[in-house]
Amino acid sequence: MNVKMDTGVEAVRTVSYDPNLNKVVLIDQRDLPHSFHYRRTNDFRETAESISDMTVRGAGAIGATAAYGFAQGIRMASLPVGSDAFRENLELVYRVLASARPTAVDPVNALDWMKSLIESKVDSNGCSVEEMNGFVLSLAQQFADDDVEHCRQIGEHGAPLITPGMNILTHCNAGWLAFVDIGSATAPMYTEWDAGTRFHVYCDETRPRLQGASLTAWELYNHGVDHTIIPDNAAGHLMQLGKIDMVITGSDRVVAKTGDVANKIGTYTKAVLAHHNRIPFYVAIPLSTLDWNLESGNQIPIETRDQSEVTHMRGINGSGDLDSIQVANPGSPAANYGFDVTPAELITGIITPAGIFKPSELWHNHSDLRPSH
Amino acid sequence: MNVKMDTGVEAVRTVSYDPNLNKVVLIDQRDLPHSFHYRRTNDFRETAESISDMTVRGAGAIGATAAYGFAQGIRMASLPVGSDAFRENLELVYRVLASARPTAVDPVNALDWMKSLIESKVDSNGCSVEEMNGFVLSLAQQFADDDVEHCRQIGEHGAPLITPGMNILTHCNAGWLAFVDIGSATAPMYTEWDAGTRFHVYCDETRPRLQGASLTAWELYNHGVDHTIIPDNAAGHLMQLGKIDMVITGSDRVVAKTGDVANKIGTYTKAVLAHHNRIPFYVAIPLSTLDWNLESGNQIPIETRDQSEVTHMRGINGSGDLDSIQVANPGSPAANYGFDVTPAELITGIITPAGIFKPSELWHNHSDLRPSH
Repeated sequence: MNVKMDTGVEAVRTVSYDPNLNKVVLIDQRDLPHSFHYRRTNDFRETAESISDMTVRGAGAIGATAAYGFAQGIRMASLPVGSDAFRENLELVYRVLASARPTAVDPVNALDWMKSLIESKVDSNGCSVEEMNGFVLSLAQQFADDDVEHCRQIGEHGAPLITPGMNILTHCNAGWLAFVDIGSATAPMYTEWDAGTRFHVYCDETRPRLQGASLTAWELYNHGVDHTIIPDNAAGHLMQLGKIDMVITGSDRVVAKTGDVANKIGTYTKAVLAHHNRIPFYVAIPLSTLDWNLESGNQIPIETRDQSEVTHMRGINGSGDLDSIQVANPGSPAANYGFDVTPAELITGIITPAGIFKPSELWHNHSDLRPSH
Repeated sequence: MNVKMDTGVEAVRTVSYDPNLNKVVLIDQRDLPHSFHYRRTNDFRETAESISDMTVRGAGAIGATAAYGFAQGIRMASLPVGSDAFRENLELVYRVLASARPTAVDPVNALDWMKSLIESKVDSNGCSVEEMNGFVLSLAQQFADDDVEHCRQIGEHGAPLITPGMNILTHCNAGWLAFVDIGSATAPMYTEWDAGTRFHVYCDETRPRLQGASLTAWELYNHGVDHTIIPDNAAGHLMQLGKIDMVITGSDRVVAKTGDVANKIGTYTKAVLAHHNRIPFYVAIPLSTLDWNLESGNQIPIETRDQSEVTHMRGINGSGDLDSIQVANPGSPAANYGFDVTPAELITGIITPAGIFKPSELWHNHSDLRPSH
């Protein structure tokens, strides 16, 4: 996607790989929107660290980062293929990357897929170190490219929902920063914007971590998409005034059996408001987000996070430095739920790479909706 | 109400008057919750300034401040009662205080009521300067005491709604800081808490200005009421989990004809969520909040405020100093609606000093609901 630079506009991916220096190249999201720079990791341990310390976040983006980190760990060791040392290193790199963010499913999916293909190659006829180094990088590359392709397909299916002059609300960041490129909730927007249709996006600021005001607004600003940041409290007011025509969010997990959607705290609120005001509410996801095991949304565990995310805020002070300030009454406890669950009956449709489905249709379209890896 | 001090607990009012020094004594709300101190205004101009610069905010509190400022302006001039100088000063003090916050109705109500009584006294049989000085202070005192009494009555009528172990949600600050004492939305809580019932209050932080996280939480903390701050996004999730039993908010204006309620942005959202989850939603107001002129809620003008309240936040930095930081993407516009309107059909009841009314009952109880001044 596009980033405005001093010298013009640069097209970038959230995650990529420098094969000459064997570095994973990541947009450092910790300092966005205040400072844009890359982090180039020196080895697979630093790549794992960049997942755990939130340099990179978002399902697709951390999946691709783990994949590149896996390739990096094997390429930098360059051990004789099939030797004990090779196998030990393979396990070590897998373990370190898989444990970087224990609750996330995408890194493990990426690592499992690569590991089984690498082991097959080793066990079948072996290969040279150079061949293996090329092979692992090509797998990681394929994983990242597939992520891009899935988002492109989400965009293709979702774009026809957008009509000229429309006002779209989105919550949190399910944008290209959360994937390798163009994002999930934002994919229909970027696709339709680039096709020449003009519309307007309201970004919920998304307290407590403000991913909407910082990341989504940063993305839309850099791509030149017309947008406005609003406090989460204002979304209902705008709906009531008829100023929101459609809502599109991402999701962390969709229960395939029911169509219930877990996503950033506040998503349920926007869905209830949309339902009350008869506004279509869509959720855009890659297939890896579908959970085929759970029976319903109330089985999804809701992470609670540190209360300091509510009581303190981070931003740029008058001297231009990143600083943290306390905004809440000292001594008062705060509750910080990371996610909520939106029941299927509040959701108009789920936009996937395989098309748009009603929440109740997911389970019966099982064969179309299984991810390739 | 109570404030925890180094030396124990001090009972204070938001607004009071020092008759010896002729100073209006205000809790300086600009630095709450980070620092508790009084501002003692030196003359009526500084009192007006303290209304316009938000040293004091909230309908009841600014009404009482204007009343005391009026008394201050007459007492400090101590002009011969009925002289041209007296009348000119009366008009000047009135004008300066009435224009301190042009859209607010309470200061003007207070000033009009006092002015007509002062003029009657002057025009009927006159009096000494000392007598007039005592008279104007007694009027201001009565205005403030009436505010306290109205809140006490709101508390008395609302308290029976609260049962042991209940979880109550409130939005913004309609607490004692917004009035002279005990507040409107908080009046039932303080009354019932002091009667020994134990319950829990969730405070919406109330973006963008965070009056819930700063002022309401500060109040409840100082009074020892069990409470938790939540991001506005979390209220729906808690309702969905059955963790909210009742909502009580204040209001800036209630349309008597319909029962529609204007209040801080986000109130409508909480009302829709409560309705969807079948949770009672109450609005607590003094009678001065009732608007007998408008036909419906959509006639209420919605103030839009500076976008910097959304893009920047104020709080205490690591060095203990108040600081402002930018939290949103630079270059992205933000919309900042101050209020929204909750339609009557989402409201269970309006808690007033004269009892609890259904929104549709207000108009027909006209005679019970007219304020005395």
